[in-house]
Amino acid sequence: MTTIDIPAGSPFGIANLPYGVFSVGGGAPRVGVRVGDSVLDLARALGDDVFAAPSLNPFMAQGYDRWVAVRSQVTSLVAGEVPDDAVHAVADVTLHLPIEVADYVDFYASEHHASNVGRLFRPDAEPLLPNWKHLPVGYHGRAGTVLVSGTDIVRPSGQRKGDPAPVFGPSTRLDIEAELGFVVGTGTPLNTPIAPDDFARHVFGAVLLNDWSARDIQAWEYVPLGPNLGKSFATSISAWVVPILALEAARVPLPGQDPEPLPYLRESRPWGLDVELVVEWNGEEVSRPPYREMYWSPAQMLAHLTVNGASSRTGDLYGSGTISGPEKHQRGAFLELSWGGKEPLTVKGEERSFLLDGDEVVITGTAPGANGERIGFGEVRGRILPAGES
Amino acid sequence: MTTIDIPAGSPFGIANLPYGVFSVGGGAPRVGVRVGDSVLDLARALGDDVFAAPSLNPFMAQGYDRWVAVRSQVTSLVAGEVPDDAVHAVADVTLHLPIEVADYVDFYASEHHASNVGRLFRPDAEPLLPNWKHLPVGYHGRAGTVLVSGTDIVRPSGQRKGDPAPVFGPSTRLDIEAELGFVVGTGTPLNTPIAPDDFARHVFGAVLLNDWSARDIQAWEYVPLGPNLGKSFATSISAWVVPILALEAARVPLPGQDPEPLPYLRESRPWGLDVELVVEWNGEEVSRPPYREMYWSPAQMLAHLTVNGASSRTGDLYGSGTISGPEKHQRGAFLELSWGGKEPLTVKGEERSFLLDGDEVVITGTAPGANGERIGFGEVRGRILPAGES
Repeated sequence: MTTIDIPAGSPFGIANLPYGVFSVGGGAPRVGVRVGDSVLDLARALGDDVFAAPSLNPFMAQGYDRWVAVRSQVTSLVAGEVPDDAVHAVADVTLHLPIEVADYVDFYASEHHASNVGRLFRPDAEPLLPNWKHLPVGYHGRAGTVLVSGTDIVRPSGQRKGDPAPVFGPSTRLDIEAELGFVVGTGTPLNTPIAPDDFARHVFGAVLLNDWSARDIQAWEYVPLGPNLGKSFATSISAWVVPILALEAARVPLPGQDPEPLPYLRESRPWGLDVELVVEWNGEEVSRPPYREMYWSPAQMLAHLTVNGASSRTGDLYGSGTISGPEKHQRGAFLELSWGGKEPLTVKGEERSFLLDGDEVVITGTAPGANGERIGFGEVRGRILPAGES
Repeated sequence: MTTIDIPAGSPFGIANLPYGVFSVGGGAPRVGVRVGDSVLDLARALGDDVFAAPSLNPFMAQGYDRWVAVRSQVTSLVAGEVPDDAVHAVADVTLHLPIEVADYVDFYASEHHASNVGRLFRPDAEPLLPNWKHLPVGYHGRAGTVLVSGTDIVRPSGQRKGDPAPVFGPSTRLDIEAELGFVVGTGTPLNTPIAPDDFARHVFGAVLLNDWSARDIQAWEYVPLGPNLGKSFATSISAWVVPILALEAARVPLPGQDPEPLPYLRESRPWGLDVELVVEWNGEEVSRPPYREMYWSPAQMLAHLTVNGASSRTGDLYGSGTISGPEKHQRGAFLELSWGGKEPLTVKGEERSFLLDGDEVVITGTAPGANGERIGFGEVRGRILPAGES
């Protein structure tokens, strides 16, 4: 038996305990919990084969009461001794996509982001469209191209506007969107809408999410049915899923909703979240997007998704949309930071607006946790490879 | 041993042999082939457990050469004798969703439909947007709400435009979209685009598809990210998947593409398909949408979906978009048939524009098959239940 050391100030202390899927050597992927700089093998530690699975889905499907019980068991284990063969150094494991993604939806819930993009894409019109303050606008994305942090991103090719005809080639305006993603643990069948107040009974956890975006492809294709190939080549998520149960101390009011939303979107106590992201471009911090500034809460997003009778499933993933605050240094996309390329940034001494081959982006995030701890989301990392390579 | 009777003129003769998933009594769902008015149990007939599965996915994942080989084996079996316990009357079985849907994408490939919708939704602008003739416009839909024919459809509720504020309630403009759907049998990994000429090696088969659409919800929500809740409550598909191998005799040129598409969308021999659909509303024929009039081919759609490096998977499903021909009686949506409600239809003596509770829609489809046979797609059927019931 052994004890797990938790370095002082670790963002993976007992207030956090996020879940992931790891493998050691050539072994089969299985569920683990991150504790300090270690990974606890849950199948070994708890003797339950639901964790000897290559995704969190079987465990998530067991439901809210079980999530509470396992979190309590793990908390006790970590305070005491665990079998030697149930603990690995995080440096020794390979991390995998933690969930089997069912449906993937991306929202557009930051007023600052939506207004900035409106000004850039539709300069002659009101930046916010008439529906924006009445419903959380969102669209379905490609579930099959959700990738774990660390996966290289090959620059996508596609059509962009040209004169007189569109041209085909590698995207020249490759961008990021710094977001949070929310993972549905237990869904509902058809015709069973989920009220905002039931959010925590259905949503298992949250991840960092980078919605890689080819702005030139997107701008040409997106009318009238929305973004498709400008987004569908890759969406990266962090390897650790932070339980909603760990985010109670991060819960804050929303910045304010006016007009008052329709009844199906009202929350008794809003699910604003005080998560602060940091975006690093080639190692230099370029933005600190504040999640607490988001207009729509993740509970409202799920309520909206299901109010028409659509079912939801274990493994459904939905993104918040780009997190942008009111200040320039709080914008979560390079499109906004560089104002469409007109105001380039200086990154490591070089002028940059969009991503060049070889660039690397790392997004991290932290939030207040229980007992004064600060909890971490790990990172979502990706490096750009030239078009046509992989 | 027994022989399978095929009635003269059956749309399920040996030129067709579509695959589905069925169960008998309370038994486990398994793969079958429709032959005349019978279902052949493939696990029993061929002694291969890949067919003792609740979806076609494991068989489809075996790839093109295997699809050819099994079709040949089944053709031989049907000409001779099969074990008694491998044959069921179609009236005695329950049909299930034939595929486990991975990602679902819906296109918008009929020039007549796109032009009609443009005129109705954006009366002051050019009906076709600038990108439309350069790329097959499409968007991702909700995979989790793809339903098998016969499933009742509960009227969705949602927000629609109101003055001064939007109102919430059951959709008042519930519509259909008569489409074909295409099922990917074997996908490709990231950064491996599928050329149009490789269509038949990757796409296993085709189904009838009804993209139920709440036009009032859709009209309010769809800018700028496309349709979401106006569509995500339900998409119905036929229970029988017609193999692409059975559609060789239905292959026809496209009506004509001008301007010539970019090289990645060019086909050596186009995959136009001479499939004629019939739409019945409460038992009365209201439309005969001709698939041969579609501007973009399904091979071009798949090439477009993957050209940005997006991977594809066994079970991916993509819809053609509403099939509308140049004539009024060839329009595949009630929105177009009733011209936005301004020119109601007479259905069984009653004026109708959109669906009322209790209405039933049945879409059927046929195509030329080998040896002069006419092959059938079966049907996609759905009945409307009042909002809030299931």
